[in-house]
Amino acid sequence: MVKITREAKGVFAIVPTPFDSEGSVDFDSLSRLVDFYESAGVAGLTLLGQMGEAPKLTQGEGVRIVTHVLKRTRLSVVVGVSAPGYAAMGALTSDAMAAGAAGVMVAPPNTLRTDDQIVAYYQGVTDEIGEDVPLVIQDYPLSFSVVMNPSVIARIARNAPGCVMLKHEDWPGLEKISALRRFEAAGDMPRLSILCGNGGLFLDFETERGADGAMTGYCFPEMLVEVVRRTAAGDRDSAHDIFDAHLPLLRYEQQPGIGLAVRKYVMKRRGLLASDSQRTPAAVLSTAARAEVDYLLSRLARKDDSISLAG
Amino acid sequence: MVKITREAKGVFAIVPTPFDSEGSVDFDSLSRLVDFYESAGVAGLTLLGQMGEAPKLTQGEGVRIVTHVLKRTRLSVVVGVSAPGYAAMGALTSDAMAAGAAGVMVAPPNTLRTDDQIVAYYQGVTDEIGEDVPLVIQDYPLSFSVVMNPSVIARIARNAPGCVMLKHEDWPGLEKISALRRFEAAGDMPRLSILCGNGGLFLDFETERGADGAMTGYCFPEMLVEVVRRTAAGDRDSAHDIFDAHLPLLRYEQQPGIGLAVRKYVMKRRGLLASDSQRTPAAVLSTAARAEVDYLLSRLARKDDSISLAG
Amino acid sequence: MVKITREAKGVFAIVPTPFDSEGSVDFDSLSRLVDFYESAGVAGLTLLGQMGEAPKLTQGEGVRIVTHVLKRTRLSVVVGVSAPGYAAMGALTSDAMAAGAAGVMVAPPNTLRTDDQIVAYYQGVTDEIGEDVPLVIQDYPLSFSVVMNPSVIARIARNAPGCVMLKHEDWPGLEKISALRRFEAAGDMPRLSILCGNGGLFLDFETERGADGAMTGYCFPEMLVEVVRRTAAGDRDSAHDIFDAHLPLLRYEQQPGIGLAVRKYVMKRRGLLASDSQRTPAAVLSTAARAEVDYLLSRLARKDDSISLAG
Amino acid sequence: MVKITREAKGVFAIVPTPFDSEGSVDFDSLSRLVDFYESAGVAGLTLLGQMGEAPKLTQGEGVRIVTHVLKRTRLSVVVGVSAPGYAAMGALTSDAMAAGAAGVMVAPPNTLRTDDQIVAYYQGVTDEIGEDVPLVIQDYPLSFSVVMNPSVIARIARNAPGCVMLKHEDWPGLEKISALRRFEAAGDMPRLSILCGNGGLFLDFETERGADGAMTGYCFPEMLVEVVRRTAAGDRDSAHDIFDAHLPLLRYEQQPGIGLAVRKYVMKRRGLLASDSQRTPAAVLSTAARAEVDYLLSRLARKDDSISLAG
Repeated sequence: MVKITREAKGVFAIVPTPFDSEGSVDFDSLSRLVDFYESAGVAGLTLLGQMGEAPKLTQGEGVRIVTHVLKRTRLSVVVGVSAPGYAAMGALTSDAMAAGAAGVMVAPPNTLRTDDQIVAYYQGVTDEIGEDVPLVIQDYPLSFSVVMNPSVIARIARNAPGCVMLKHEDWPGLEKISALRRFEAAGDMPRLSILCGNGGLFLDFETERGADGAMTGYCFPEMLVEVVRRTAAGDRDSAHDIFDAHLPLLRYEQQPGIGLAVRKYVMKRRGLLASDSQRTPAAVLSTAARAEVDYLLSRLARKDDSISLAG
Repeated sequence: MVKITREAKGVFAIVPTPFDSEGSVDFDSLSRLVDFYESAGVAGLTLLGQMGEAPKLTQGEGVRIVTHVLKRTRLSVVVGVSAPGYAAMGALTSDAMAAGAAGVMVAPPNTLRTDDQIVAYYQGVTDEIGEDVPLVIQDYPLSFSVVMNPSVIARIARNAPGCVMLKHEDWPGLEKISALRRFEAAGDMPRLSILCGNGGLFLDFETERGADGAMTGYCFPEMLVEVVRRTAAGDRDSAHDIFDAHLPLLRYEQQPGIGLAVRKYVMKRRGLLASDSQRTPAAVLSTAARAEVDYLLSRLARKDDSISLAG
Repeated sequence: MVKITREAKGVFAIVPTPFDSEGSVDFDSLSRLVDFYESAGVAGLTLLGQMGEAPKLTQGEGVRIVTHVLKRTRLSVVVGVSAPGYAAMGALTSDAMAAGAAGVMVAPPNTLRTDDQIVAYYQGVTDEIGEDVPLVIQDYPLSFSVVMNPSVIARIARNAPGCVMLKHEDWPGLEKISALRRFEAAGDMPRLSILCGNGGLFLDFETERGADGAMTGYCFPEMLVEVVRRTAAGDRDSAHDIFDAHLPLLRYEQQPGIGLAVRKYVMKRRGLLASDSQRTPAAVLSTAARAEVDYLLSRLARKDDSISLAG
Repeated sequence: MVKITREAKGVFAIVPTPFDSEGSVDFDSLSRLVDFYESAGVAGLTLLGQMGEAPKLTQGEGVRIVTHVLKRTRLSVVVGVSAPGYAAMGALTSDAMAAGAAGVMVAPPNTLRTDDQIVAYYQGVTDEIGEDVPLVIQDYPLSFSVVMNPSVIARIARNAPGCVMLKHEDWPGLEKISALRRFEAAGDMPRLSILCGNGGLFLDFETERGADGAMTGYCFPEMLVEVVRRTAAGDRDSAHDIFDAHLPLLRYEQQPGIGLAVRKYVMKRRGLLASDSQRTPAAVLSTAARAEVDYLLSRLARKDDSISLAG
């Protein structure tokens, strides 16, 4: 399997884990999802992320999901291997890479505070998984309470040859992209592929600042693909047009706590998931919330006729 | 001066504090701002909030700002009096109410964790300022790290007769509004006026859920006023139309850390502020960021022709 | 194997995980440790706790450690099963109980804030592991940032029939013990066995307030056993005498970050561990720190002649 | 008045603010306290610290306390001027220095995370108060959630000529002292006076590591003075003997939340305070807690006959 590189571009879709109403992993829906993502034009998939409910899976389930997806697709697959300690991270990394993963993603534990602690943590990750495994840094302060300024990311990139990609979801984050690109231009750090998260909330400008694409799970990945494509093609207004059409729904989906429930509900309506169940603990959409999403979908359908709810 | 009540409705604008380039309070711009807010149709003003850079003012400056505004307007004025301790809070409350304020707003200190701690804290606030002073609870977990579930707010409302309003900026928060209105309907708590913050990011649905309006500082308060008005008039689609037109800019302004810089920049472009200076520590807009805001303004102007940049 | 009950008393030793210098689990030292704890008079052992470096183990290693210890001892063994999600927690619980564990211990995830969130979390734990498995609540705000007031613990105890023990390491915590015992006396909650942590720093008074013993890993568990025994026998001054003799060292060992390194160093000096290695990331004792511990040990030897460094 | 310097040594007592039972500042007790501290041999006093209940005072009260103390004593007086913003900090600093203070102390706001943020914050402090005002950095992660590694403190010391002292209460912290002294010896930073806090819990070793003394408020400052003196005189065992005699009480007083109540209770028993009242919110000692302190005092009196409860 091809590994991700510093030049990776496009959209990596954060894949939600489908569960049936009993809480078991629904592999049929997972297959359907994978096919859909391919047809939507994404460049890769990300498995076992936070929004994939990875912390709610047993280790065995995680490995089965990775194996299942890798058998079905030739897309690049990044696997989230964050763990409370290096040993479990290393074990999952070995399993994932052996199954054909293109790289692994690691979020920092929320106990890290100082610059040196963060750099040392990722040094330890590299020591554990080896320099041959492509590593994605997940930079998401809102969720992990760990703040990495650009110079810290540069230090990690210099120290860890395997580190090739940044999942950027700092907030505010536009200046961070610009700062990293300046560091690269000045020779202060090797190039990283920068894919942006935060549900895509700033993707319209992130791509303009130099991001290579998105790594997020918005329920209409086609839109993310289009924004990246149109921006790359220089169609600025057109990129913003489609982005703005989706923004009311995207913003609704991006609510912490309830976002995944919205995402799964829409994906069920699109025929991609047999059930929108999550494992507990999970937020459940109220009747009012479902009606709000339905309303947003009806408004979206009037603005973006390229997208149908039938997927 | 009339005090705020449990029935208060509409938009209370969070007033930014104008500074000149030397860092002194610019009272001329402050007067101009007050006149503008009146013309924009807001129901009230909120002074000395976080977005008014209250923590960067001396106590004397805060009092002068309150006095200045109260001399200029008949709008209801809520004053932020959050302080590290009750004594300073009480002193500022006395000054503000003596000058004619309509009520005071208090955020919880970020050391509070348990339900009982939060309830006890607001009991202490009431003991300090007295039950005659209308009190606004500021519920903003993203900024203060204090999470109040609806039953805690109900307890505070039952215990503190002076508590008449909730500045709601929990996230996600739509269900919270519904839960509080259910509590009120069931007689479990007295009615609170609920005005929503978070930069207005969910105002389109918050008003539909039962919120009475907004208390936030978005740089086009006219839009907030219109959303509240149209929703109250039953013009749902129309309310969403104007909201959606502003959402790209509103989302951009709502970025933590950089939001106030965006807001002041637009207000300067609108002719309301002589300078967009903030006191340190402050985020400064890069050239790229200013260009992005300009671009968003140009796109907005094409969608909402009722709003001109000349204010 | 006998399960722990609400009446459990005495000292449960938090067992450190012995590693050799290569980072592999050292089962010979583990056997020696178990024998030592039996001879020291403890009532039980706790495996896979934070101070057992549980987060640094793979799931397989954790199970092997539990199995190894349970084959060697008839002491009651509590197993830490805290996990990012319920599924992994349930899997480990099944393995541990099948191997003969006396109960499991669960710490709250650090994302919990409100009373209701905490109660709901432990309700979910009970739903996952079943009411037949004796459950220990780990209440350690300094480490987990989750604050449970006594009424929350009472709610959990009322709701979860399997919950029989509290590992108490709140700080300050003496009043909490008194409050829980008052609740029990008033019939507001079922009795819990209360064993205290915090390295034993307040054990002298905790037992007087109604705690049933200690669950901690101080390097001289004999002292903890004696304090519990003497207090139960009414020998107050004598209990404080032995406690005070150890307090300088106990305080030194209780330093966050470096405590486990101190503990393992002393246990190596006592001949219990072949190596004081920890898995990374880990604090390492400097030469100066080792000399300080040696000095404290020499002072201790002059005060407590019942304890020799040879174990 | 003489200003503090990089060579400052000895004990700076954190002065509690005496209140009468109505909550007013009790200036008579304050005078008595000042006289007591002089007789106890301290080198200086620290006013308006956290343990002085500074956040509960109005700005006017704070200034009156500083003025009162400075009229009564020739000891060096450090004034805590931490404030939500620079303007208020600057105003209080001007008042304090005009009244004769020897320097000011500033704690970092708990929003700081990265190394650069911390360094920039203290740069801003220096810009506000000027380089002529001796500045004390308060490094207390347990309370402020801001972690400064030694290299960050070195950067601050290099950048801010006014910065002459570190109030060290990191935890664990012994290695930090050693690291800073190594930086100084290597010429990587100018010398700082290092005075240790944390209630004195590690003072016995801190002085051996190179600390110049203590800045804390333990209810028997005579002991702190003796530990510093005996260590400086090379009487290691003797320094530890008196420290160990006090450790059971010192440890009890050092409990977060309840520590100040213990301190004031003992100081009242010693005849120094007319009342042990605190302003709300405040922990109150239960009957059981008072009895525990009494018991610790009786045990202490048997070990350290140089100290009487009559002060």
